[in-house]
Amino acid sequence: MTDNAADEAAVRALMDAWAQALRNKDAAGVTACQADGMVLYSLAPPLVSGTSARWLQAWFDTWEGPIGYAFADLTVAVGGDIAFSHGLSHMTGKKTDGEVVDLWFRHTLGLRRQNGVWKVVHEHESVPFLMDGSFKAAIALKP
Amino acid sequence: MTDNAADEAAVRALMDAWAQALRNKDAAGVTACQADGMVLYSLAPPLVSGTSARWLQAWFDTWEGPIGYAFADLTVAVGGDIAFSHGLSHMTGKKTDGEVVDLWFRHTLGLRRQNGVWKVVHEHESVPFLMDGSFKAAIALKP
Repeated sequence: MTDNAADEAAVRALMDAWAQALRNKDAAGVTACQADGMVLYSLAPPLVSGTSARWLQAWFDTWEGPIGYAFADLTVAVGGDIAFSHGLSHMTGKKTDGEVVDLWFRHTLGLRRQNGVWKVVHEHESVPFLMDGSFKAAIALKP
Repeated sequence: MTDNAADEAAVRALMDAWAQALRNKDAAGVTACQADGMVLYSLAPPLVSGTSARWLQAWFDTWEGPIGYAFADLTVAVGGDIAFSHGLSHMTGKKTDGEVVDLWFRHTLGLRRQNGVWKVVHEHESVPFLMDGSFKAAIALKP
């Protein structure tokens, strides 16, 4: 395995650990993958936010049972101690208010290796919005 | 200037050239900054799109006069031949149908240096959407 292939494998392993923690609603497991001061562009307002185990736990508590989460069309690029990824995420499950979630969204990460360990320093997740004057988020798109 | 500082300056110069081409509605100038096969997550559907001078020109033609475009809170990270950036973009101007645009959105780029030249290989632009049941795009947020 070349250095670059090994680095890419390490980044993908971090992303897998992050997704597994999300599925398990393990807030500490998610934040362990994230750098302090991570800049989050979330599906929900505001424009820019951060993350914390407390905030994640409150969000996890709005789900009934586990969260379904899978990556598709994932591309990972690594150079030195910097990496980024982009792909689609598919989130499924049921909220405690009865809403059934089956959402595809775009997902981009920026990562840094700090003291030999890869961490997510930036996360951008979104759906586009309709340009028909309604300005509705396009939450029903499938890849 | 260290190698890393020089690389970051080169990436920022590319981004400035890209933004200037956008302001000038210069489609060839924009695509010159982009790699073939760039993966675009646009404000508008679909989930995933690409770009071309022809598509850009059609979009530019929906604007009356120049487009205002500025970056804010820009972070650039470079490692080897890979870089990413994230920040807010402020787009202003008037569409030919009379709509006045004054939009802040989140903007993330993935870049690669190919044959010594930095190119944008991934672009993700978005606004969040309201979680109040309306699923409206939050197009009026300010930083």
